[in-house]
Amino acid sequence: MSLDAYERYLVEHEEEHLEALKEFLRIPSVSALPEHQADVRRAAEWLADYLRRIGVPEVELLPTERNPVVFGAWHVDDAQPTALIYGHYDVQPPDPLDLWTSPPFEPVVRDGKVYARGAADDKGGVMLALQGVEAVVRTRGKPPINLKFFFEGEEEIGSPSLPTFMPAHRERLACDFIISADGGQPALDQPGITLSAKGLCACQVNVRTADTDLHSGMFGAVVPNAAQVAAHLAASFHTPDGRVAVEGFYDRVRELSPAERAELEASRAGERAYWEQVGAPALWGEPGYSPVVRVAARPTLDINGIWGGFQGDGVKTVTPCAAHIKITCRLVPDQDPEEILDLIERHVARHCPPWATVTVERFPGSSRPFAISRDHPALQTAARVLEQLYGKPPVVARQGGTIPVAEIFQRVLGADMIFFGFGTPDGNVHAPNESMRLESLRRGRRAYSAYLTALARA
Amino acid sequence: MSLDAYERYLVEHEEEHLEALKEFLRIPSVSALPEHQADVRRAAEWLADYLRRIGVPEVELLPTERNPVVFGAWHVDDAQPTALIYGHYDVQPPDPLDLWTSPPFEPVVRDGKVYARGAADDKGGVMLALQGVEAVVRTRGKPPINLKFFFEGEEEIGSPSLPTFMPAHRERLACDFIISADGGQPALDQPGITLSAKGLCACQVNVRTADTDLHSGMFGAVVPNAAQVAAHLAASFHTPDGRVAVEGFYDRVRELSPAERAELEASRAGERAYWEQVGAPALWGEPGYSPVVRVAARPTLDINGIWGGFQGDGVKTVTPCAAHIKITCRLVPDQDPEEILDLIERHVARHCPPWATVTVERFPGSSRPFAISRDHPALQTAARVLEQLYGKPPVVARQGGTIPVAEIFQRVLGADMIFFGFGTPDGNVHAPNESMRLESLRRGRRAYSAYLTALARA
Repeated sequence: MSLDAYERYLVEHEEEHLEALKEFLRIPSVSALPEHQADVRRAAEWLADYLRRIGVPEVELLPTERNPVVFGAWHVDDAQPTALIYGHYDVQPPDPLDLWTSPPFEPVVRDGKVYARGAADDKGGVMLALQGVEAVVRTRGKPPINLKFFFEGEEEIGSPSLPTFMPAHRERLACDFIISADGGQPALDQPGITLSAKGLCACQVNVRTADTDLHSGMFGAVVPNAAQVAAHLAASFHTPDGRVAVEGFYDRVRELSPAERAELEASRAGERAYWEQVGAPALWGEPGYSPVVRVAARPTLDINGIWGGFQGDGVKTVTPCAAHIKITCRLVPDQDPEEILDLIERHVARHCPPWATVTVERFPGSSRPFAISRDHPALQTAARVLEQLYGKPPVVARQGGTIPVAEIFQRVLGADMIFFGFGTPDGNVHAPNESMRLESLRRGRRAYSAYLTALARA
Repeated sequence: MSLDAYERYLVEHEEEHLEALKEFLRIPSVSALPEHQADVRRAAEWLADYLRRIGVPEVELLPTERNPVVFGAWHVDDAQPTALIYGHYDVQPPDPLDLWTSPPFEPVVRDGKVYARGAADDKGGVMLALQGVEAVVRTRGKPPINLKFFFEGEEEIGSPSLPTFMPAHRERLACDFIISADGGQPALDQPGITLSAKGLCACQVNVRTADTDLHSGMFGAVVPNAAQVAAHLAASFHTPDGRVAVEGFYDRVRELSPAERAELEASRAGERAYWEQVGAPALWGEPGYSPVVRVAARPTLDINGIWGGFQGDGVKTVTPCAAHIKITCRLVPDQDPEEILDLIERHVARHCPPWATVTVERFPGSSRPFAISRDHPALQTAARVLEQLYGKPPVVARQGGTIPVAEIFQRVLGADMIFFGFGTPDGNVHAPNESMRLESLRRGRRAYSAYLTALARA
């Protein structure tokens, strides 16, 4: 069976594959919002059907505490390795809706991109992987290696069910390595291999200063103001120049070697232009580290939201009684998510004035940072396939984002994750007007066909 | 005509008068919210009808740039003084709705209080004044002095139309003094006379750091965070111990004399318990001044609201691109609202980091602080009437709240305002579960009948 066969199949089915992706994108499977529970379920069923359509013999929705895992298995040969293909069918909330050019769950193609919530993260990634598998299977009769499929529905809320789900299904999920269809590459014509991804922890700080909002004229001079306390607290997490001011935050951070730093700088210098295109008056961040190193290997504490008091049009002369701060941290080896939440809690207690009651609410879904050795054989095969496809070697990447399962698979199954994703940095992931380039879908499908073929032992 | 006559009338019509108030309270005349435009109009018409029902011969809705002034005039005798009774028929927004025990626009009586948005501020005040007038008119045939009525529909948004409306109607509004039916007294059994009310200015600070919300993993380490910038800005307006940190803010503040301070402390010491009942862990405010003096005579800068980024349930790993701060200031003689807004703007410009774009949006409705001489004859008559009614002399009050028209009447018509209001401090004005005591309504109605009678020249 020549390479040409699956390539021809992919060209011939391009329209059909795009339509399938659009069908998948129309399901608003937002895992963070309870009102989309049924849609999340519908997306899981849709995906299981797609696996069956490809010919995967064993397909099942495995229940978790929340959203099911779409699981599939296709054993072909004991002499071949077993790869588990990972992705997720849930998506981020689409708000703020008014910033979308077209509705988030009505996918449209404009300027060579398909626009929709999930187009890049991760329904596009899942579909290009499955369609790559499909092309090999259809032109060859069966996959060249043993395959498992694992698509979760809780990635965007930090995969809270997996820490209990994974150990319970250890045998069934057993594999030699994982291929992640989530994530992307440094640029449209520049492939990358990923050596690490950041960890995550999340909490909400709740400030209360009175039983009710109060008249600012009668009370503003004597009763504390929750919005003001929250502002002081939120401001206390960073020094004015951008370093995280939580005591102990950086204590366990593994510094990159000068060689590792240089490698990052050399390979990812082009990203500056990408960061600068988002409309920020200036770049910003922890002093003492370049932007490239900050994104790749420095932890952050991010205020995701702050609110309290009156937000309507015009004027309301109240002294707010309650205010809130949403915080997530992106973590690097060897930071520990629970320990970081402890430090935040201690910081808040230390900075809370006596005239306010402040609580820290921890969210589930903490994730430890992930790292893989650059000598892993399946990672090296991936690098070779990508070099062949793009005509240049992949650059080394250290992801600023978080893939909670990477660390869980490593810890529970002893299997490493190879990131094999094709989103481009202009995809507005987690933001309005998310998109995936048609060219990325095309190349990603070919890459999966080629990778599976190359992974087969002679 | 004896005092007994109007008193008997008031007792006999108590039920009917309460029902009329409840009817008025059912109209959700929220001037700050565009969706209540028609309700505001309806409240004005309802009130005009009530004036006609009393017998006021000249009643008219005078159009302004926004909401009409309900105007009435009843000239009885050139030898008598002319008093203009002032109040407002608009109310504050009712949110947060979930904190109300009963719906804000479905008035109910519980524990001797009528609960509804506007019960105290100011529909209760307007109705008790009109019902006091009614009692005198019905038992005497006509009012003892010349009366004008002026009820506006923009008080809760800072009376933005009045600065142009008032000069245009100078002749028609001409009067010897104004009686304000807005406001309250220090305690249920303690009358007060008001020597000053604070001024007000309002603005919104808008922070922008990027074109769109961004993925915190891909951008959080390099792109500025609008929520964080807003928090730093909001925190910069005060020193940690509660002094306003805007340069020049206190420059024009007229300090009270030691005698004035002592008078305030002596008469209003009981208020501490009232402030402490709102559920604050501790009192708070500008150091160096007692709570009583702060509320009465010190200016404040109040953060009425702050918001930016994600506010939903759970976690959303975004770096917010926009955030906002609502600010009002309560001003004292001789601060100037526009100058204070200039200072805030300068402060924001000085504290805005280079990685954010920050604008200050000024709201209309600024109000200069108000003050009246304690020797004013109509004020002294009010004090005598109150002393007779309560069996003790009224204490001197300096209001923490703002009555924009007080300063405008003084400036445009050369007429001083006597505050003759009967709300009690536990009325949750501008807050959920606003209420007015039935006892306050009862005594307020009698007080108006008595005051009008006492104001007549022999």
